Amino acid sequence: MNTQIVLDHGSGGLASQELIGSLFLRYLTNPHLHQLEDAAVLDGQAGRLAFSTDSYVVDPIFFPGGNIGELAVNGTINDLAMRGAKPLCLSLGLIIEEGLAMDTLEEIVRSIARACDYAGVPVVTGDTKVVPRGKADKIFINTSGIGVIRDGVEVSATQAVKDDVIILSGTLADHGITILTSREGLQVDGNLQSDTRPLHFLVQNILDQAAHAVHTMRDPTRGGLGTTLSEIAKTTGLCMEIEEKAIPVQGEVRAACELMGLDPLYLANEGKCVVFAAPEKAELILETMRATPEGRESAIIGRVTDVHPGRVVLTTISGGARLVEPLTGEPLPRIC
Amino acid sequence: MNTQIVLDHGSGGLASQELIGSLFLRYLTNPHLHQLEDAAVLDGQAGRLAFSTDSYVVDPIFFPGGNIGELAVNGTINDLAMRGAKPLCLSLGLIIEEGLAMDTLEEIVRSIARACDYAGVPVVTGDTKVVPRGKADKIFINTSGIGVIRDGVEVSATQAVKDDVIILSGTLADHGITILTSREGLQVDGNLQSDTRPLHFLVQNILDQAAHAVHTMRDPTRGGLGTTLSEIAKTTGLCMEIEEKAIPVQGEVRAACELMGLDPLYLANEGKCVVFAAPEKAELILETMRATPEGRESAIIGRVTDVHPGRVVLTTISGGARLVEPLTGEPLPRIC
Repeated sequence: MNTQIVLDHGSGGLASQELIGSLFLRYLTNPHLHQLEDAAVLDGQAGRLAFSTDSYVVDPIFFPGGNIGELAVNGTINDLAMRGAKPLCLSLGLIIEEGLAMDTLEEIVRSIARACDYAGVPVVTGDTKVVPRGKADKIFINTSGIGVIRDGVEVSATQAVKDDVIILSGTLADHGITILTSREGLQVDGNLQSDTRPLHFLVQNILDQAAHAVHTMRDPTRGGLGTTLSEIAKTTGLCMEIEEKAIPVQGEVRAACELMGLDPLYLANEGKCVVFAAPEKAELILETMRATPEGRESAIIGRVTDVHPGRVVLTTISGGARLVEPLTGEPLPRIC
Repeated sequence: MNTQIVLDHGSGGLASQELIGSLFLRYLTNPHLHQLEDAAVLDGQAGRLAFSTDSYVVDPIFFPGGNIGELAVNGTINDLAMRGAKPLCLSLGLIIEEGLAMDTLEEIVRSIARACDYAGVPVVTGDTKVVPRGKADKIFINTSGIGVIRDGVEVSATQAVKDDVIILSGTLADHGITILTSREGLQVDGNLQSDTRPLHFLVQNILDQAAHAVHTMRDPTRGGLGTTLSEIAKTTGLCMEIEEKAIPVQGEVRAACELMGLDPLYLANEGKCVVFAAPEKAELILETMRATPEGRESAIIGRVTDVHPGRVVLTTISGGARLVEPLTGEPLPRIC
């Protein structure tokens, strides 16, 4: 077997079939994928469907706390979870640069398989393309996913209302700062790690407790919490008032951000969500989130008001107030 | 507005939002996409679901008869159709190289919109990433799709049985030879054009007439008809006997193939399918296919037997017989 990916692996011919058999089906074992059909066929599903897609182009492809493979699985699971959906299955589309080491691909596929197993969400259909050396950067991954939304769940950016409590599921900026420091080769104190993880268990726990009280959920990935809240403020025309001192940020993350002159509010997260909940159920939801491992550090960070319509206002640690705008003119490419 | 794509367009911040508003939502107008949520929410669907994904990396991105945008729409629609599904919606994941002309992107998005309108299948969710110059080649597109399969339809590579009639929906190799000659800058006689088109109307017409008689459908894309039939032969353990003289190939395509030393059997098609049908319904299905514009040149090209188990046997024009193997060792990269 080749030790590197060659163009022939993307031909659709014998080499493609060998790659599928020796690698993909070895790790991603499930009856749907084994059929090797043009499309997977799933049983009829009761309930509305959620459908989402994301491409992952993160650089570097291996980073402290994860790699592009598990990021791609968790990321799309989280996009489905943010609509209140229970993720059902994923597709996997790989674009590979000729010359990628087979061992590297195997490690990525193994991570994908592990992340799928952990989440209980299988890859049921896939596609692999190979482009000549220099026409891509190692590997890009698209995952799309289908989820099912139970009756009574209505979660979207438009549902947030005045007096909603804003709860964040944990510390901010871990993924973004980890990618940036590893890309720059910066040595920083402490143990920076991506927070990549699936959030659908946490979401289902919340919905089990208080489905009707959950109005909006978002995972602040690219653009960070600042951009996410700005979008919701713009969509609803309401004001998001948040408190800087209530927003959990790990000490080493804060230090690295200061070193690089970056604001944690705009850095990407890959395992955190922000939940807008009716005030009478906020404590119950907070407790439920904290009782789930991935939400242990959940905190109430603010509240929806009508003071500054369409704006996000941050009360700083020093007690001042500043407007939070969406990320602009500061490209941090290939963060996910 | 920028005349080129810049990294900031992929930041998830303000520039991303502007690109979505000024371009994607302008052309891809539908309520699902306008919500700009992490995932689209679809009404509950009666019936089994088909789910498929494909990434498109074709080079050149514009070619006679189409471009990467409509190819991406039609290709995934066809993958769904090949399972007998009625395509319901698509996702759209773009990976764009920094510096791509905005006009080029607009032309591609316009083609995507036109192809979606023609097919009646909307893009309901999407994602855009931008990578630095030299880290991708202009644009790569992933489309995933969901379809619904009506009761009584059971189409898969395993369903083909002895005596099935093999029907091809039109001429072979149009897409593959068009891409290869335009890439090489070859001047050839005649008017070579990609055959990119959706096949779901044709498929639904067949299923309306004779759902139970349709056993297997495949669109011979990468690897061509030779590889597709080899896979079905291997899956079923049956023999595919086909007749070279019955396989429609346009004159200029045949001439270009001879010029380049290529076998039309292994070149990609993007608007053709091969249908395995029970013999008693084969004429009805052939007529139905011919009555649909995209199947006007449909022809019976062979039959399933048990003469050479697991093999494809071609009776050549000169009357000889040769085994057709899956494509091997002849990479024709970035054909789709």
